[in-house]
Amino acid sequence: MFAASHRRLNRLTGEWVLVSPHRTARPWQGQVEEVAADQRPAYDPACYLCPGNGRAGGARTPEYDSTYVFDNDFAALTPDVAPEEDDRKGLLIAQSERGICRVVCFSPRHDLTLGQMPAEAIRTVVDTWVDQYLELGSLDWVRHVQIFENRGAMMGASNPHPHGQIWANERLPNEPAKELAQQRARADSGGCLLCDYLDVELDDGERIVTGNEHFTALVPFWAVWPFETLVLPRAHAGALPDLGPDQRNGLADILRRLTRRYDRLFGVTFPYSMGLHQRPTDGDPHRGWHLHAHFYPPLLRSATVRKFMVGYELLGQPQRDITPETAAQRLRELPED
Amino acid sequence: MFAASHRRLNRLTGEWVLVSPHRTARPWQGQVEEVAADQRPAYDPACYLCPGNGRAGGARTPEYDSTYVFDNDFAALTPDVAPEEDDRKGLLIAQSERGICRVVCFSPRHDLTLGQMPAEAIRTVVDTWVDQYLELGSLDWVRHVQIFENRGAMMGASNPHPHGQIWANERLPNEPAKELAQQRARADSGGCLLCDYLDVELDDGERIVTGNEHFTALVPFWAVWPFETLVLPRAHAGALPDLGPDQRNGLADILRRLTRRYDRLFGVTFPYSMGLHQRPTDGDPHRGWHLHAHFYPPLLRSATVRKFMVGYELLGQPQRDITPETAAQRLRELPED
Ligand SMILES: O=P(O)(O)O[C@H]1O[C@H](CO)[C@@H](O)[C@H](O)[C@H]1O
Ligand SMILES: O=P(O)(O)O[C@H]1O[C@H](CO)[C@@H](O)[C@H](O)[C@H]1O
Repeated sequence: MFAASHRRLNRLTGEWVLVSPHRTARPWQGQVEEVAADQRPAYDPACYLCPGNGRAGGARTPEYDSTYVFDNDFAALTPDVAPEEDDRKGLLIAQSERGICRVVCFSPRHDLTLGQMPAEAIRTVVDTWVDQYLELGSLDWVRHVQIFENRGAMMGASNPHPHGQIWANERLPNEPAKELAQQRARADSGGCLLCDYLDVELDDGERIVTGNEHFTALVPFWAVWPFETLVLPRAHAGALPDLGPDQRNGLADILRRLTRRYDRLFGVTFPYSMGLHQRPTDGDPHRGWHLHAHFYPPLLRSATVRKFMVGYELLGQPQRDITPETAAQRLRELPED
Repeated sequence: MFAASHRRLNRLTGEWVLVSPHRTARPWQGQVEEVAADQRPAYDPACYLCPGNGRAGGARTPEYDSTYVFDNDFAALTPDVAPEEDDRKGLLIAQSERGICRVVCFSPRHDLTLGQMPAEAIRTVVDTWVDQYLELGSLDWVRHVQIFENRGAMMGASNPHPHGQIWANERLPNEPAKELAQQRARADSGGCLLCDYLDVELDDGERIVTGNEHFTALVPFWAVWPFETLVLPRAHAGALPDLGPDQRNGLADILRRLTRRYDRLFGVTFPYSMGLHQRPTDGDPHRGWHLHAHFYPPLLRSATVRKFMVGYELLGQPQRDITPETAAQRLRELPED
């Protein structure tokens, strides 16, 4: 592989990432993050996601004992929006956008993370995601269901209780729209982009992190974040409901394996944003769409030194120092239990 | 304007941003940033950008008295890269990428910021940018010159000494490539996208922040960051060298006006990434390209509460709470001297 600066094509989005393998020696004198004290009680009376506690607007979180889903009290998207369009001279273009934002508590236990939960409990989270995708996706105006988790204060999580979010949209957002275009183009010439990609990666081996019978986790060839990973089902599937019981266990298992590796890397609960990209729910079969999960973790060198996506990255294109191959190797060397 | 959730089209990139005007009431319990103690000495013996001090690798910063430009000691891009291409099954695609990374010290004074410098000194920075764009852009293999500044630890700046960077590339990065496509499409039908856009904005007035005879600063209709702004020359120009002496003074003046407003907003040196988008230097005249500067500041509500571009933003599309109109109004109400 290229020893000097090069760019790699993200085959899923069609955009480029700049790789600078020689730049890892750069000293860091910039911002140093705080390491969050990770001693949390199993129940926090001040946490609105803990069972039995009050929430904003007077609601109360019930005494749940596995997962618990509710509409976000401060939803960015709401379903009751009157249709409206604006187009001033083809320059100021806006459209009303309906949506539903939900919160998914992964566990009643305030002190756990996804990876620390027993495999069966993670499987329950997977089943909850399946139900939510089906329920929200079946609304005739919902065309995309984004399931995600922001973990850690560094990733904007406003509460450490293990939870994720779901934002369902009237229209396909930018990122899945790019992925759809690339996957569709490959499907039109008779193949599945991510099935084919996974074959090449399994064959090569260099970027594989971990796996089981049903799922593989790897650092994609075009990874932007230092320890970014992509989780792929080995058999073609477009969305969570396509997975049988064994595959759902396989997904729970790989989430556990991967997040445990992450937590070992720098000895802290690894911050990340993760999310599932599933087939759009607009009614089209989207046969070329391959279900996958992205993990975008910001840490670069230690628990306190992160990668900043700033100046050049915002104005030009993403840039990374450590190569995807090195990142995969480091993650591969860690234990996962 | 839409009182409920809607999306707006970024006419420069062709991508969408989600706007949630109703969401400003959301309480914040998440990460709180530190306010950097802003008492810096005029000269810091430990700062490698201060005149006369040693740098990494044994180089020494000279006794400069206005601006000072040098090749980045830890350049992400280097010019001496052997051409190489890789394409495995149309899936793993990489290309070597040559480039040059420079650092531009704005002033020998460690304790100043761009906006605190006298107008003539900012003009000298503008002239330095002109020279650099011409010099780097004239290399036959350089097709894009990205001038930018990361200001503040929150934006990954590793040194508070007033400075910016320049990364010159062999190929057009993602963001200018998107902007080129949109500007070219408009030019093909006989117009300049940003000339036309500026007319609509001046006419409307709602999003204008400040201006002078030659430049206007406004919050774009499609702003992603809470207090994002776009700086536009009022007469068509594709790159800095197209500007005459009065216009260059005009640019220095508007940078001063705008950054001083920013610093007043929350009473701190406002963190941001800013950069100039100029005509690509591939030899094509690019008549539809309109010179502009983007300011991307992360702060949302106060000196310590920022907007996080995480989960939904990374996996779906950017989302904002405060509207561009409200942001413009708040910036407009501030003094600029
Ligand atoms: O070169 P610097 O200032 O040390 O580094 C900063 O700016 C670069 C260009 O935007 C980024 O790639 C780095 O992540 C950031 O820390
Ligand atoms: O809804 P939360 O967790 O309070 O908010 C967090 O996630 C959202 C979705 O990615 C982002 O828009 C916010 O910027 C972030 O702070």
